[in-house]
Amino acid sequence: MSSSRSIERIAVITSGGDAPGMNAALRAVVLAAEHDGIDVVGFRHGYEGLLNNDYMKLGRHEVEHILQYSGTIIKSARSERFKSDEGGIEAARNLDAQHVDAFIVIGGDGSFRGANHLAKFWQGPIIGIPGTIDNDLYGTDHTIGYDTAVETAMDALDKIRDTAEAMDRVFIVEVMGRNAGYIAISSAMASGAERMILPELQKDKPLTIDALVKHVEGVNRVRGDSSYVMVLCENQWPGGAVRLAEQLEDRLNFPCRPCLLGHVQRGGRPTAMDRILATRLGVYAVQLVQEGITGVMAGIERNELVTTPLEDTWVKRKVLSQELIDIQTKWFNPIKKDRHKATVDKA
Amino acid sequence: MSSSRSIERIAVITSGGDAPGMNAALRAVVLAAEHDGIDVVGFRHGYEGLLNNDYMKLGRHEVEHILQYSGTIIKSARSERFKSDEGGIEAARNLDAQHVDAFIVIGGDGSFRGANHLAKFWQGPIIGIPGTIDNDLYGTDHTIGYDTAVETAMDALDKIRDTAEAMDRVFIVEVMGRNAGYIAISSAMASGAERMILPELQKDKPLTIDALVKHVEGVNRVRGDSSYVMVLCENQWPGGAVRLAEQLEDRLNFPCRPCLLGHVQRGGRPTAMDRILATRLGVYAVQLVQEGITGVMAGIERNELVTTPLEDTWVKRKVLSQELIDIQTKWFNPIKKDRHKATVDKA
Amino acid sequence: MSSSRSIERIAVITSGGDAPGMNAALRAVVLAAEHDGIDVVGFRHGYEGLLNNDYMKLGRHEVEHILQYSGTIIKSARSERFKSDEGGIEAARNLDAQHVDAFIVIGGDGSFRGANHLAKFWQGPIIGIPGTIDNDLYGTDHTIGYDTAVETAMDALDKIRDTAEAMDRVFIVEVMGRNAGYIAISSAMASGAERMILPELQKDKPLTIDALVKHVEGVNRVRGDSSYVMVLCENQWPGGAVRLAEQLEDRLNFPCRPCLLGHVQRGGRPTAMDRILATRLGVYAVQLVQEGITGVMAGIERNELVTTPLEDTWVKRKVLSQELIDIQTKWFNPIKKDRHKATVDKA
Amino acid sequence: MSSSRSIERIAVITSGGDAPGMNAALRAVVLAAEHDGIDVVGFRHGYEGLLNNDYMKLGRHEVEHILQYSGTIIKSARSERFKSDEGGIEAARNLDAQHVDAFIVIGGDGSFRGANHLAKFWQGPIIGIPGTIDNDLYGTDHTIGYDTAVETAMDALDKIRDTAEAMDRVFIVEVMGRNAGYIAISSAMASGAERMILPELQKDKPLTIDALVKHVEGVNRVRGDSSYVMVLCENQWPGGAVRLAEQLEDRLNFPCRPCLLGHVQRGGRPTAMDRILATRLGVYAVQLVQEGITGVMAGIERNELVTTPLEDTWVKRKVLSQELIDIQTKWFNPIKKDRHKATVDKA
Repeated sequence: MSSSRSIERIAVITSGGDAPGMNAALRAVVLAAEHDGIDVVGFRHGYEGLLNNDYMKLGRHEVEHILQYSGTIIKSARSERFKSDEGGIEAARNLDAQHVDAFIVIGGDGSFRGANHLAKFWQGPIIGIPGTIDNDLYGTDHTIGYDTAVETAMDALDKIRDTAEAMDRVFIVEVMGRNAGYIAISSAMASGAERMILPELQKDKPLTIDALVKHVEGVNRVRGDSSYVMVLCENQWPGGAVRLAEQLEDRLNFPCRPCLLGHVQRGGRPTAMDRILATRLGVYAVQLVQEGITGVMAGIERNELVTTPLEDTWVKRKVLSQELIDIQTKWFNPIKKDRHKATVDKA
Repeated sequence: MSSSRSIERIAVITSGGDAPGMNAALRAVVLAAEHDGIDVVGFRHGYEGLLNNDYMKLGRHEVEHILQYSGTIIKSARSERFKSDEGGIEAARNLDAQHVDAFIVIGGDGSFRGANHLAKFWQGPIIGIPGTIDNDLYGTDHTIGYDTAVETAMDALDKIRDTAEAMDRVFIVEVMGRNAGYIAISSAMASGAERMILPELQKDKPLTIDALVKHVEGVNRVRGDSSYVMVLCENQWPGGAVRLAEQLEDRLNFPCRPCLLGHVQRGGRPTAMDRILATRLGVYAVQLVQEGITGVMAGIERNELVTTPLEDTWVKRKVLSQELIDIQTKWFNPIKKDRHKATVDKA
Repeated sequence: MSSSRSIERIAVITSGGDAPGMNAALRAVVLAAEHDGIDVVGFRHGYEGLLNNDYMKLGRHEVEHILQYSGTIIKSARSERFKSDEGGIEAARNLDAQHVDAFIVIGGDGSFRGANHLAKFWQGPIIGIPGTIDNDLYGTDHTIGYDTAVETAMDALDKIRDTAEAMDRVFIVEVMGRNAGYIAISSAMASGAERMILPELQKDKPLTIDALVKHVEGVNRVRGDSSYVMVLCENQWPGGAVRLAEQLEDRLNFPCRPCLLGHVQRGGRPTAMDRILATRLGVYAVQLVQEGITGVMAGIERNELVTTPLEDTWVKRKVLSQELIDIQTKWFNPIKKDRHKATVDKA
Repeated sequence: MSSSRSIERIAVITSGGDAPGMNAALRAVVLAAEHDGIDVVGFRHGYEGLLNNDYMKLGRHEVEHILQYSGTIIKSARSERFKSDEGGIEAARNLDAQHVDAFIVIGGDGSFRGANHLAKFWQGPIIGIPGTIDNDLYGTDHTIGYDTAVETAMDALDKIRDTAEAMDRVFIVEVMGRNAGYIAISSAMASGAERMILPELQKDKPLTIDALVKHVEGVNRVRGDSSYVMVLCENQWPGGAVRLAEQLEDRLNFPCRPCLLGHVQRGGRPTAMDRILATRLGVYAVQLVQEGITGVMAGIERNELVTTPLEDTWVKRKVLSQELIDIQTKWFNPIKKDRHKATVDKA
């Protein structure tokens, strides 16, 4: 995987759904490269920019004050055209035309598949930096943007809780995550939500409206309260939070209110954790390409910098923490709660 | 309207949809009353608490550290029962049983209708304090909670803008306001949204999907950009932001993403402006009841404390600023923009 | 003051201490000017840029996404050189060389003095827009940046209160305001501070450490509490919050902790209120110069757009609300609190 | 260390400087205990409450909605009295009088020393939960409150940067950390500060004003800019940020502005990361006492729950990441930057 050669110019793109902290990663790549006397060019709109030869030079000046902003100054996009052999060849040709020696892509698994596609047609070192709010990449404990998205979802849930305490209600807050429950479970735990609906929990037996009604009634009986907050991961209920709220209201005879956060979760100032993660991975990626490492994602596992083959990041599956699931579902919000029984059980 | 008598005990309720700053108003009532040697009791869950005789004493200790929290420590609710004559009589009886001399209700127009209903059966001074995020009460330039709701909507719109700049998209953000466009127009202007859909603008001719498509295409042609943010006031489009996004996406062949803020807008730390407004009105209401004033709402118009008969607050109509409408629709986001023509027009 | 002529190019500067919302005002000037077919150029670093002929064209593209950021894209500065006749002549010459027809300055009283100085040497319409966090300009109820600075100070005070409730302490938070107590009184009221030290209150008799000690002890005796938060306006105590905390700790034998917010108050996302104010005033200024109005500040009083001669903005004195002072010092935090006596006094 | 026995009542205290997330830890202890049929009592004001037998029952109701608030509902304090043998004996007597079977203390190293002191006089299981913003405890990668404090410091630094970009200035922001540079280095990296002054970096050779002047001038020459932000850890410069700003201004002939965040860093809504950490450790602590484990701190290292003997937490020393130090000082802000030379060095 490694064969060192002198790197004089690095190309970088941000690709796929944008994530807070992508700018911080760009900045780190540029400052680290500058330190080592390497030029950086950024292609705009992800792989589309590679095809269109649409690039800009990225120096200290361009990245100096982008650390605190989400979005990405070189824009992001998804590209269908690039997926063909013709697309890969064209991209490789443009990289060579610009004298690019190494390529860094900041994005999610779709972006990394693109990187592997590019590697079929281009020989320089290619490194992936995990930038997606969904946190669904194997090979890194956290992806850039995930912590910020959790904060944003938690902030909305906190506000919902303020009003839930004032007027008894059921609230359903739909959060992002694609097919993974990371944002949902973390924001649910952080905000003390009574229920979360995650793909990981619904795998074996599909969730029914009956089961949800039973949980609302059961939990509220235990708590002697009638406010109840549910975190719904996107794609886990037909019609989403809006439809689920209607269905629950029909059944519970009680006001149920939806909230759909949507792309709000992609914005906002990146958290310190995301900026630091992005900075570390950006510097690390520049080190890796200079060592001739290629075809891997730079990540952080158990606090340490690690690399993982790009393909593993989507083929292998990061597992949601069972400890967190247990706390939320068994310790804190069990449907049946019979304290005397529990005491007896322990005897 | 005024016949002074000694006030020894004030009852206060928060009623209807809760609004950030209601707690600040409660605190001000209690501290001002304490200063004048008056007791305060709070009935819980609005008029429901009056019927159920469910109250708590509110002293300095109970309200000391609630200023910064939204929600309401005496809870809010809507009450159907209270609307009958029997309800009014029962409420009056309970106020007398608790030796209440004056009554203050913090809420919106429904709460003030309730106050007028109560006045049919109870003789003490009754004062309304405007607490609703919708800002739709005649007789006060701002209602408590409105400024905070605008900040919350603006914050979501800012985050949407972050991601809109990274990836070209159309976004539709649905905000509250019941039948008034205050939150919508203020958050749209504050965030630089390209379009707002308000009841005040759709009165004469119903909005069509064709008109919206034309505006998106027209504005983006002028700006040479393809991100576009629309603020939709609730109840102004069948199916709300979710449905409108589907319809626009069909027509524009371009990703359109909805966001439904919902009750998030009722939560969050109240802004300084809301806390100061609530504090001023709470102190003023305590002064008014001691002067024997009754049947009015305490408000602030053009920076001055004023009173308005309760009935006027919902019968008369506060008008949305034409200046703001013009800035958003004529100055900043006109559909047709032909600079040469504009110059000629001026000649 | 008015003699209409055709305006084809407006120059704009931001001058003096920057304030959140200056960018929003710039954007409004540019968008309104573009609507009327007028060019805008921005001179950098305030009057310094006028002297150095350092300017940039400001079009829709330059200002499109600056609404939500504090600071100023054309930078600000103070200029000694400009104050001389030579400076004024040079500035006028450069405005003419760039074919500028009208001049808009966003800043505080120093900036407006500069505008009057310029008017001695240059004939076009000159309009001031009030941009300063201190809110100390006659002729407008609010200046751009003031509301954001109050929010920032309040946010710090809220956080201090969190920890004050956990551990009994005296805290002194020093806020900005130059020689005016606006930020101090508003943030004190909004956060429920027990005490504020303002220039307006100390005018007649200088504040002594004895009086402060007496107030801390008196208020805490009434409240039965030992946490106490004091808001200190800058320049009102020798050595500021750091020195005052040492002195109080010596006397009270109790931990006293200072906090010095400093320039943090100039940053942060502008609030909705500041952005809307900036937008309205920016559009209004463009209208005014086209009407040939000159030598005035565009402001908002009692919710309406008004103009005030520039000189009045610093010669006349805006008065701090006595209502707010009374609430904070008489109603809520009196040193002596004798409830029976208060009751008797009213009899 | 382990000898299981039935636990029916747990006592908990929060001790020492409060930290955001302490309430979340309390809640987790209570909910987990309730799940297992265990009562919880909270002694108020830390070890002081143990001496004064000042306690409250903590059930689901008391902790239901405290997750999102900083501070601690059972208050915190430092206690001199408790450190004596008499204090320890009295505390043990009170625990026995209340039929307490296990003891959990949330705090920093002083609190853990107290726990070891208590263990001399009392036999039940004792567990420490790391709650301090300083992050200076061996045996856990993060302490509760640290992430929130970093966010708060970063937020202030972001705001400083806004204004620094508008007007060229040197800013010095003093942050907490006691004798450790965790908050300083993380907030410096997250905000892109040009310089940090940490105890860990000043150990060998004391920092001089000359060295600082040289760095400001050197860095700004490289960047072609004159704004510069320095993060100063408390206790690392005589007179703190205020004095250092005066000294630098004297030398640089350039405005230098101090900011002293102080206890603001202890407040604010805890971040998701702090709440989740607190929740995990609270549940874990309840598990540990039931297993009869005693004399250890519950922590998280490399994402896993671990225990560390209490004494190790202050005797052994957690080391600041050299990777982070290198990024900040060598990669991003070297004093001398000679690009050609750097290139040659690599050759």
